[in-house]
Amino acid sequence: MKSTIAVALNDRTYEISIAPGNLDRLGIQCQRLGLGKKIVLVSNPTVFEHYGERTIATLAQAGFEVSYCELPDGEQYKTRDSVAQIQDFALDNGLDRASTFVALGGGVIGDMTGFAAATCLRGVNVIQVPTTLLAMVDSAIGGKTGVNTPKGKNLIGAFHQPLLVWTDPDVLATLPAREFRAGMAEVIKYAVIGDPALFQLLAAADGLQQHNISPELLTTILTRSAAAKADVVSQDEHELTGLRATLNYGHTIGHAIESVTKYVVVNHGEAVAMGMVAAAQLAVKLQISAHWTELEAQRQADVIRKADLATELPAGIDLQQIVNTLKSDKKVKAGKGVFILPTQIGATATIAYEVLHPTDELVSDRSIEQVLTAMLPIAST
Amino acid sequence: MKSTIAVALNDRTYEISIAPGNLDRLGIQCQRLGLGKKIVLVSNPTVFEHYGERTIATLAQAGFEVSYCELPDGEQYKTRDSVAQIQDFALDNGLDRASTFVALGGGVIGDMTGFAAATCLRGVNVIQVPTTLLAMVDSAIGGKTGVNTPKGKNLIGAFHQPLLVWTDPDVLATLPAREFRAGMAEVIKYAVIGDPALFQLLAAADGLQQHNISPELLTTILTRSAAAKADVVSQDEHELTGLRATLNYGHTIGHAIESVTKYVVVNHGEAVAMGMVAAAQLAVKLQISAHWTELEAQRQADVIRKADLATELPAGIDLQQIVNTLKSDKKVKAGKGVFILPTQIGATATIAYEVLHPTDELVSDRSIEQVLTAMLPIAST
Repeated sequence: MKSTIAVALNDRTYEISIAPGNLDRLGIQCQRLGLGKKIVLVSNPTVFEHYGERTIATLAQAGFEVSYCELPDGEQYKTRDSVAQIQDFALDNGLDRASTFVALGGGVIGDMTGFAAATCLRGVNVIQVPTTLLAMVDSAIGGKTGVNTPKGKNLIGAFHQPLLVWTDPDVLATLPAREFRAGMAEVIKYAVIGDPALFQLLAAADGLQQHNISPELLTTILTRSAAAKADVVSQDEHELTGLRATLNYGHTIGHAIESVTKYVVVNHGEAVAMGMVAAAQLAVKLQISAHWTELEAQRQADVIRKADLATELPAGIDLQQIVNTLKSDKKVKAGKGVFILPTQIGATATIAYEVLHPTDELVSDRSIEQVLTAMLPIAST
Repeated sequence: MKSTIAVALNDRTYEISIAPGNLDRLGIQCQRLGLGKKIVLVSNPTVFEHYGERTIATLAQAGFEVSYCELPDGEQYKTRDSVAQIQDFALDNGLDRASTFVALGGGVIGDMTGFAAATCLRGVNVIQVPTTLLAMVDSAIGGKTGVNTPKGKNLIGAFHQPLLVWTDPDVLATLPAREFRAGMAEVIKYAVIGDPALFQLLAAADGLQQHNISPELLTTILTRSAAAKADVVSQDEHELTGLRATLNYGHTIGHAIESVTKYVVVNHGEAVAMGMVAAAQLAVKLQISAHWTELEAQRQADVIRKADLATELPAGIDLQQIVNTLKSDKKVKAGKGVFILPTQIGATATIAYEVLHPTDELVSDRSIEQVLTAMLPIAST
C-alpha cells in the first residue's frame, strides 16, 4: 500500500508520500526532484543508529554528497543554539542555494532542521523524513518550524514549507510504545474534528496499540491524517483565518497539563488526549449540539483508551497550577482565547472563553475549575 | 517635496514614503495602518541620541506602547546573538502577533530588526525607518534581512518584506560625511545600471557632497534610487531570475576589496565605487558595447570623484590577496561567477567569468590581475 497527498500551495505545492520501503528510495526521489549535489542530513543518535546508514546509502548511491550533522536527542535541545550548530555545520560543509537539508527524526529534529533551512542563505530546501507517528501525521507537514526559548515553546521560528514529506511506515517498528501512543492522540483528533470515516475505522479496530495495528490500517491512518493536515494547511497556511486553529482541538488544556507536568510526566500526545476528554465533556455540558451528547463523548473516550492513552489527569496533579497556567495564557488575557469544541463526530465549533464565564472577569478560577474537575477527573493515587 | 513609491508584491505590497518631517509623523502613519498597540523600537546609542526621543514621542502620542531595545553600534554586532537579544527583549515585553518592530538606524539595525521580526512568533510586522543614505536607497528596501557569521556576511537570514519604509531626509543632517559618501556610491550605481536621467542630474550637480546637495536634489536622488530598487524587488523578490543580481554592479570586486581591507580601511560604498571603476574599464576593454567606451567610463569616474569617493585602490593594498579572495568565491569555483558590466549609461549585461579567461582554468591569477591592475590603479603612497 502506498499513497500520495498533495499539499496545494500554488508554486510551493509539495507531496507527502507514504509507503513502506520509502526510506531506501529517498535517493532516487531526490534525483527525480533534480536537487543540487550537496545534502545536509540532520538527525539524533537514537534515530541515526537505526536508520542513518541506510539514509546516507540511498542518497550516496543516487550521487549526492551527504554530510551528517548530529544533534542530541530531546526537546530540551530544541534551542537557538542547536539551530546555530546546524547552520554552522552546513556553511562549513559548503552549503549553497541549491543544497538541501534532510530532517531524519521526530518533531524536534524536523522543526529545527526546517528552521535552519529557512534561515541559511535566506532559505534553502528541506525534505522531511519523519520517524515518529506524531511527526508523520502532524509536525512534518505544514511548514511550521522553530525552537523554544526560556519564555515558551516555539516562540522563535518561521513558516517554511518542505519540498517533500517522505514517510516510511516501516520505521515505526523501532518507535517506543509511549511515543506511538502520543501520535495516536493526534490521529484521534483528526478523526473527531473532521473525518467520521476514520473515526469508524479506529472505533472498529481490535486495538490501537502499535503491535495490533495491521500495516494496511497503519497506512490508512497515516494517509487520512496527513490528508486532513494538508487540507487545513492549504487553506490557511499562516494561521490567519482560524481554520488552522481547529487543529488545536484538545490542545488548550493539553498545553497547560504539559506545562504543569514539566513535559516529563505527561507528554504532548498524552496531554492532548486529556484535553480532548475535557473538551468533549465541556461540549456536552454546554449542550453545544444535538449531535454531541454524553454518547459521543464516551465513544471518543473509548477510542482514546483503546490506544492506551489516559482519560484522567495524572494522580497528584495540582489543579490550581493548571488553572493559573490557563489564566496566564496571553490569548486569554487579551480576551481572544477560544476553545475548539466538537459538535458531532467529524465537526467542531470555535467557542470564545466568554461563553464559559460570561461575567466581568473573563476567566475566573471557578470557570476553569469547573471545566477541569467536572469534566476531567483526577486519577486516584 | 515628498514622494511615495509602491513596492508591488501582491498582497504584501508596501509603501516607501520619502518626505522631510516624516519622523514626527510616524505615529499617525502607524495609526492609519491599524497596527496593534505594542511597538518594539530597535536602534543603537548613536542614532537614538539624535532621534530616539522624537520617535518614541510620535508613537506614544498616537497611543502606542513603545519599548526600546538598544544594541551596540557597528557591523561587528550584526550577529545571531544580537538578534537573540532583540527576540528575548520583544518576548519579555509581551510581543504578540499584532505587534510591530520599528528599525531606527542604518543597514545593521535594519537587517537585524527585520530578521528578528521574521522569526518572532513565525513572523510579525517590521517598519524600516532608515537613518543612513545607504539604508534609504538600498538596505531598508526589499526584505533582505540577516546577520553575519564567522564564515561570511549575511549567511543567515530571511526574506521578510517590511510593512512600510518611512524615510525622512532631514535625519541625514547628522550623518558623518564618510557614511554619506558610501550611500552616494549606491546612488551612482542605480544611475549607471538603469537611470540615465538620474545620471544626468548627478553629472550636472555642482557637487555631490552632503553639504552642497539641495534638499530638492536630495529628495529626487532618494526617490529615483528607491524606485529603482523597488522595481527590481517587485520583479525578482527572491533573487531567482538574475534581475536582482544586476544590483550587484560594482559589488564583485567591491566585496573582495572590503574583505581584504577588513571592512575598516575601505567601507562598503567606497569599495563599490572602486568596483564600478574596475567594471567600467573592463567593459571598455572587452568592447562590450559601442555605447560604453572610455568616454562613458570617464563620465562615471567623474561623478564618483564628485562624491569624494576614490577611484583608485588604497595605497599599500595587497593585490594578490584580492585575487585570492575573488578566486575563493564559491560562485566562481562552481563556474557560476558573473560580472555585471555596463553597456551604456543606464543598461548592463551579465558576463560569465569564462569570458574573461576562456581557458582550462576558470579563473587564473593572471586574468583577475589584469582586471585589477590594468583597470583600477593603486594610489601612490
